[in-house]
Amino acid sequence: MRATVMYSAGDVRIENVPDPDVKEPTDAVVRVTRACICGSDLWPYKTLEHSDTGRVMGHEAIGIVEAVGADVRTIKAGDVVVMPFAFSDGTCLFCQDDLQTSCLHGGFFGTVEVAGAQAEAVRVPQADGTLFTLPVGEDDALMPSLLTLSDVMGTGHHAAVVANVGPGKSVAVVGDGAVGLCGVIAAKRLGAEQIILLGRHADRIALAREFGATDIVSERGAEAVERVRELTNGFGAHSVLECVGLDQSTETSIEIARPGGAVGRVGVPQDEAMPGSQTAFSDNITVSGGPAPVRAYIEELLPDVLEGRIEPGRVFDRVIGLDEVPDGYRAMNEREAIKVMVKP
Amino acid sequence: MRATVMYSAGDVRIENVPDPDVKEPTDAVVRVTRACICGSDLWPYKTLEHSDTGRVMGHEAIGIVEAVGADVRTIKAGDVVVMPFAFSDGTCLFCQDDLQTSCLHGGFFGTVEVAGAQAEAVRVPQADGTLFTLPVGEDDALMPSLLTLSDVMGTGHHAAVVANVGPGKSVAVVGDGAVGLCGVIAAKRLGAEQIILLGRHADRIALAREFGATDIVSERGAEAVERVRELTNGFGAHSVLECVGLDQSTETSIEIARPGGAVGRVGVPQDEAMPGSQTAFSDNITVSGGPAPVRAYIEELLPDVLEGRIEPGRVFDRVIGLDEVPDGYRAMNEREAIKVMVKP
Repeated sequence: MRATVMYSAGDVRIENVPDPDVKEPTDAVVRVTRACICGSDLWPYKTLEHSDTGRVMGHEAIGIVEAVGADVRTIKAGDVVVMPFAFSDGTCLFCQDDLQTSCLHGGFFGTVEVAGAQAEAVRVPQADGTLFTLPVGEDDALMPSLLTLSDVMGTGHHAAVVANVGPGKSVAVVGDGAVGLCGVIAAKRLGAEQIILLGRHADRIALAREFGATDIVSERGAEAVERVRELTNGFGAHSVLECVGLDQSTETSIEIARPGGAVGRVGVPQDEAMPGSQTAFSDNITVSGGPAPVRAYIEELLPDVLEGRIEPGRVFDRVIGLDEVPDGYRAMNEREAIKVMVKP
Repeated sequence: MRATVMYSAGDVRIENVPDPDVKEPTDAVVRVTRACICGSDLWPYKTLEHSDTGRVMGHEAIGIVEAVGADVRTIKAGDVVVMPFAFSDGTCLFCQDDLQTSCLHGGFFGTVEVAGAQAEAVRVPQADGTLFTLPVGEDDALMPSLLTLSDVMGTGHHAAVVANVGPGKSVAVVGDGAVGLCGVIAAKRLGAEQIILLGRHADRIALAREFGATDIVSERGAEAVERVRELTNGFGAHSVLECVGLDQSTETSIEIARPGGAVGRVGVPQDEAMPGSQTAFSDNITVSGGPAPVRAYIEELLPDVLEGRIEPGRVFDRVIGLDEVPDGYRAMNEREAIKVMVKP
């Protein structure tokens, strides 16, 4: 089959690789009908060191189950399934606590260990715990929004949940990528009264406003902090969704939170030390978050997608075939596209 | 009156200073009957730069109200009161949220701005919001435990609350100072099943065991992490109470938390960046805490003190007069004393 292989920073190729098959009795093989390029794929796109074997990329997909192992009980061939970016057994103590991204027998797609889904097919370990069968056909009109349940919508929702977003709260969303935009949707859905987006791209800002952003702050650093304070009676936001992962965005996130507030981090932190530690301490600001257990959130978010109350699929502004994936990386890296959908 | 004045690191003197008086109509003047030296006083004791005016130290006290300003309604002369380390108006939006340490009209005792309580008397701003009248006489036998409600017991409790300690949980307490020991009391009181103290002083360990610690870890760094993992089925603790504030203790705290767990910080962080950011992220560990709103906790903790269910006053292992305060600083700094009570 054809798949997306990254060999080093900037070196993304479409190549023929062996077809995936059922290796473990808990595996499924899924024919990929929709995949995407993720903002987090841009980190290796910018920094990956060369390897001769390369890495099959992609961790978000919807597809049709082609085969299942002997121990798979709840998933069967022909099912239309959404694949979260992490696989998980669904039974360990962390899965029981709805923290599937820390599953004792879990892991992540598109890594050195487990091939990814920017491909014609993908092997899914722990199929019962990982996959979620969708009550729709292969080409349902809702596919874009359903596809976001594999990562960005669940991730934006996670940021909002761990930042304690709730009715009447003021929320600041740092970052106008697909996750930040989904964070706006999540904040609105959870009842936030004020939603301030920190971003500077006109197309994304326009979409954020449609999703429910009430205010836009395009400044950065100290000026952004000042603007958010002005917009929140001088106090800062109850909840801040950190959807970037850089030092500056993290520091800004802490500085725009009000005393007693919370920062939900879902941008993968690029540095080992977190800035703003003393500010967070002196203001009793909670810093939480991490890889979103999106598997846990599908059940909650799916009805809103199916009934059209949320439309996270609107973050896709480009649809490409597998051969165009290298250019899709380039387009996202150059901020030419918000998020790219792949139809293998 | 006589008061403790710190001029620079290591330079603590008992001097005659002007008697405090009611400056604002919301002030009270309190004759100090009990004060203490706090672990956090040791930071300036080690690092304060010289000033000619010096700083009147001390932020924990019990005393008798001598005078109140015209606007004070709930506190009257003769009341036996406990004074939290922060003053607060009790009415602003942060006080209403029980975050008195972020009061819009609040501040801290023993600072350049507001004289402290290691003195014969202290001026208390925002007396109605700050002081709590105790239903006991001036020399009640429970004075040591009541005195801890001004800081260390409330602070240990805060760490436990923000680290989500609850029935059946495993808790690790990092630091065997007075706050750490009160953290053990708080964890036990909130129903923790396992309480692991990280400390290495025999006398403190013995007291921690009496307070409810089930396990002791005296290793540091990577070895401490390994020991805590062994004690918690390999997963780490649900809740970690960081009661030190150094980089290493913070990093250890994050590393011994289990995925989805929480670290409650009450040790004042000595560095601007927090180590362990990526570990906290990858394991979805919440980092929370800050200056404890001890004023909010007095009402909850007081009955347990009055009825003898908790005995935080046992952290005091030395009682001195005002003249001996400089030696008290030395003794605490050299770990010769856990916590020193001052009877001015």
